[in-house]
Amino acid sequence: MAAVTFEILKKQKGSRARAGVIHTPHGDIETPAFVAVGTKATVKGITVDTLKDLGVQTLIANTYHLHLQPGSELVKEMGGLHSFMNWDGPLLTDSGGFQVFSLGAGFGKTVSKVTREELDADEKVASVYDPDVASQHGKLAQIDDEGVSFTSHIDGSLHRFTPERSVEIQHELGADIFFAFDECTAAEASEAYQREAMERTHRWAERSLKAHRQNIDAGKRQGIFGIVQGGRFESLRRESARALAEMDFDGYGIGGSYQKFDLDTAVGWVTEELPEDKPRHLLGIGEPGDLIKGVQQGVDLFDCVQPTRLARTGMVYGPGGEKLMLTNAAYVHDHEPIDATCSCATCTHYSRAYLAHLFKAREMLGAILATIHNLHYLLTVVRDERKKILA
Amino acid sequence: MAAVTFEILKKQKGSRARAGVIHTPHGDIETPAFVAVGTKATVKGITVDTLKDLGVQTLIANTYHLHLQPGSELVKEMGGLHSFMNWDGPLLTDSGGFQVFSLGAGFGKTVSKVTREELDADEKVASVYDPDVASQHGKLAQIDDEGVSFTSHIDGSLHRFTPERSVEIQHELGADIFFAFDECTAAEASEAYQREAMERTHRWAERSLKAHRQNIDAGKRQGIFGIVQGGRFESLRRESARALAEMDFDGYGIGGSYQKFDLDTAVGWVTEELPEDKPRHLLGIGEPGDLIKGVQQGVDLFDCVQPTRLARTGMVYGPGGEKLMLTNAAYVHDHEPIDATCSCATCTHYSRAYLAHLFKAREMLGAILATIHNLHYLLTVVRDERKKILA
Repeated sequence: MAAVTFEILKKQKGSRARAGVIHTPHGDIETPAFVAVGTKATVKGITVDTLKDLGVQTLIANTYHLHLQPGSELVKEMGGLHSFMNWDGPLLTDSGGFQVFSLGAGFGKTVSKVTREELDADEKVASVYDPDVASQHGKLAQIDDEGVSFTSHIDGSLHRFTPERSVEIQHELGADIFFAFDECTAAEASEAYQREAMERTHRWAERSLKAHRQNIDAGKRQGIFGIVQGGRFESLRRESARALAEMDFDGYGIGGSYQKFDLDTAVGWVTEELPEDKPRHLLGIGEPGDLIKGVQQGVDLFDCVQPTRLARTGMVYGPGGEKLMLTNAAYVHDHEPIDATCSCATCTHYSRAYLAHLFKAREMLGAILATIHNLHYLLTVVRDERKKILA
Repeated sequence: MAAVTFEILKKQKGSRARAGVIHTPHGDIETPAFVAVGTKATVKGITVDTLKDLGVQTLIANTYHLHLQPGSELVKEMGGLHSFMNWDGPLLTDSGGFQVFSLGAGFGKTVSKVTREELDADEKVASVYDPDVASQHGKLAQIDDEGVSFTSHIDGSLHRFTPERSVEIQHELGADIFFAFDECTAAEASEAYQREAMERTHRWAERSLKAHRQNIDAGKRQGIFGIVQGGRFESLRRESARALAEMDFDGYGIGGSYQKFDLDTAVGWVTEELPEDKPRHLLGIGEPGDLIKGVQQGVDLFDCVQPTRLARTGMVYGPGGEKLMLTNAAYVHDHEPIDATCSCATCTHYSRAYLAHLFKAREMLGAILATIHNLHYLLTVVRDERKKILA
């Protein structure tokens, strides 16, 4: 019996949407589900109790960040990521591929779009790739068919990830679900480069799977998802999905850099090719409208830093999903909550005026209360989609 | 019937310690009690739910800070401080005297010990007074018998507090207990200056009381405490306590700048003179040992930023009250909680290694979890003293 299994409860007529349950060693995930981002083994500013109050089912932590600090050996020594961060529910780790190519490549390069400030903000950042394929990964993240050598964005130290090493690190972290190491390309990359990178990703997927299956113990505790690449090219996306579908993964990630591709097309190409009976995770996409489109295309899991990162700047989802900037002068005297129809703890107890005060005063509680609201908002969007499918 | 009344349940033999209850319009405070500091209408990084879980009975917010931002008019418009910050328990505001003389005097003065960074940290800061009395308040906080003109530490704008204006602001804030406006002197000031400032504080106390008694509505909802001054001089401390005791305050603050005076002497001189049947608040003192000494001297209330401020830097009360710096290399692999005998949520669920990781990664949760522990620690110290008195 695999550590991670998937059960479809109901399919929606007229779309690819489905409601299901992912069974993991740390409990079930009712899908479609929004996965809260806990990059460095914490959802920024939010306690585990609050996550549970919000109905967060599962978190995704980051292999690249945790490898650099505190190190997966330490996490293993502390009893694994669940125990380390006091999260007893289902837990995911991503492969670190995206960060190796974006943050790793960006260290010390003044031409990079990755500023020190963004790195401190520290989660996934917008792609820093030069669309010129030849120099795409820069000199500080050197790729070869075996793996990638890269420099830490923290101290410039040298590191190397291979598919086998990424699996080893993720075994040490011990999440219920982890991802095969992939090469994350820029959306603007040429078809020729996308093909080259995709084929490498497929070879890495096979090596990741093999490394995972060789560790019988880890196999009992952890499921592995392969990541579909292929950029914006239909032929590549379909080819990638078919290639991965033939490998014995427990589920699939749909990857790519974060220049938004058309959710009505690219995601659909992929889900049409992937096996129906395996869960699908659309990596790093989290605008409310995108979640709804993704569900329609048959996506089961979403994660995105957007709701929590926006919240920390004072930007929240207002009535009808319209974004409000709480530091706007309009809210200084505003008695209303962020959204009078919202049932979250923030909207139940606090006015926009109080939140505006907290952000102006640079009080941590502002970011905390805004994060609670934004997480609640996205969790509700996805829960509502699930209800519609089950209805 | 006064808005705030005090009931002594038991006195300890051989000391001045007493256990009691302060009745306020928003509930009771079981004394001795530690008052959590919520300077800008929030305890930094801690939600109201967490405060309640910790057993925090009451908070003290800051008149100077809230006057500058968001302004007491706004707070009043939002239904008062309780409603604004979602705290339905007993609430205090201090008079703003300490901040007017320290922060207000510090703006833009490069010779000041108040750096921009400390101001951003923003709560009570160590005294910035020049012991030379003549220049004590600098040019930016000008004192006269009517009141004090000062400049905002935020934007340098001009403001003026008189006793009447401080009372008016505190009526708008609407805390259950507030303090008469006082002149807070440096501990090193000469006896002559201490006398001058003390006598002015007494005149201001009378004016504050009068202004409060004239507002019948506020009187039904709020109690006023007078503040004893007099520095380190026994004759002045006793004189100040006697002078205030003759005024009809609902309780008394024991003030002074934060160069620690001897709790075995100065506090004792004051409590010996104050009426037994009124509560006493030792302002801004919060080292564990000081709390125990204060209780022995008959103090009922304590507040201090120390536990929360230290926590945000990673410094916590370890076993036996010894301070541990969580960022110390010794804790990187430490499986133990901060204190294995502690029952707080942080010690129940997290290792020092995890906390060390959070502080290194500059994650907000580090400050939050450390604050929870330090607050729990001081609350427990005072609760234990109460139990001993009642036993």
